[in-house]
Amino acid sequence: MFSPLVEQLISALRVLPSVGPKSAQRMALHLLERDRDGALALSQVLAQAAQQVGRCEKCRTFTEETLCKLCDNSKRNQRQICVVESPADVLALEQAGIFSGVYFVLHGRLSPLDGLGPKEIGMDKLAQRLQNDTVEEIIVATNPTLEGEATAHYLAELCKSQSVKISRIAHGVPIGGELEYIDGGTLAHALSSRREL
Amino acid sequence: MFSPLVEQLISALRVLPSVGPKSAQRMALHLLERDRDGALALSQVLAQAAQQVGRCEKCRTFTEETLCKLCDNSKRNQRQICVVESPADVLALEQAGIFSGVYFVLHGRLSPLDGLGPKEIGMDKLAQRLQNDTVEEIIVATNPTLEGEATAHYLAELCKSQSVKISRIAHGVPIGGELEYIDGGTLAHALSSRREL
Repeated sequence: MFSPLVEQLISALRVLPSVGPKSAQRMALHLLERDRDGALALSQVLAQAAQQVGRCEKCRTFTEETLCKLCDNSKRNQRQICVVESPADVLALEQAGIFSGVYFVLHGRLSPLDGLGPKEIGMDKLAQRLQNDTVEEIIVATNPTLEGEATAHYLAELCKSQSVKISRIAHGVPIGGELEYIDGGTLAHALSSRREL
Repeated sequence: MFSPLVEQLISALRVLPSVGPKSAQRMALHLLERDRDGALALSQVLAQAAQQVGRCEKCRTFTEETLCKLCDNSKRNQRQICVVESPADVLALEQAGIFSGVYFVLHGRLSPLDGLGPKEIGMDKLAQRLQNDTVEEIIVATNPTLEGEATAHYLAELCKSQSVKISRIAHGVPIGGELEYIDGGTLAHALSSRREL
């Protein structure tokens, strides 16, 4: 019912995650009606980012430089590497403000069914780094899902073969969480991972 | 925490309606991680649409041509004009598949507080059309809000001065709606607008 170009815009907007036909239509009409400058700016940045953003040579996070800000920062402890699934996890950990080491971003997790083997998530690069650089500790912060656990297990084997210390972040009851609202799986994990006081 | 270009992309995505910082971040990472081609395509269509999509000379809906498909269609009854607030309303009415006339899109409603007077919503253009073309009926389909009603009232005055028949679409209990779940305002309207059987 819309003109061809407007229809094209609506269907192009559907590349965005969790944007269905109705939202895409609302977005297209909003941009055309109220914010053409914003649309043009977005168009420009989109093209630039899609073409120029690559991965940090050391940690594989997204950056348009060779090295990301953290890997290029001599104040960060380059001997302590926290392995995460996505760049968003780096942000979350940095916002906690407690970790002073560097990261390694898998961009996924071991998932053979989806065609994600060790190489696809950069394990060869990490293995190389363990061999060539002085790495003291690998901290595994993959998500506590089945695939995240499998990835953690793989990382443990890798570190053992290189005699590098490996640890996993703790899973349990969140600070501020109330016991009665926590799911059984988390409680079971919290109990079995209890520490002496 | 992200590289400058990624941060730019995240903030540019916030021109989209109801996209906050978290969604924008998720969208940016999704595009970079999984769909760069889609991002490039979106970038192109966005620029094209923002620059080329204008308004139909007759009905003010969005189109990149001089006239939209409906105004350019000789099979549509050009003497019956349905006045709506937005191009999305045209789509909704067309999907109902019962109306064979043409539309006039206000791109808003009378709302002096927002700086939307008669001229901003194209009333001068509609008045001109009532004078120059043979228009038999104006059907007002603005939304049943305070401002929509004010707009309907203004249209009624305009049509009276030009002796053109004017009608308003019915408001009442939706087909398939159950009485007990309908709000009081709608029920009051449905009662006062009752028709003899």
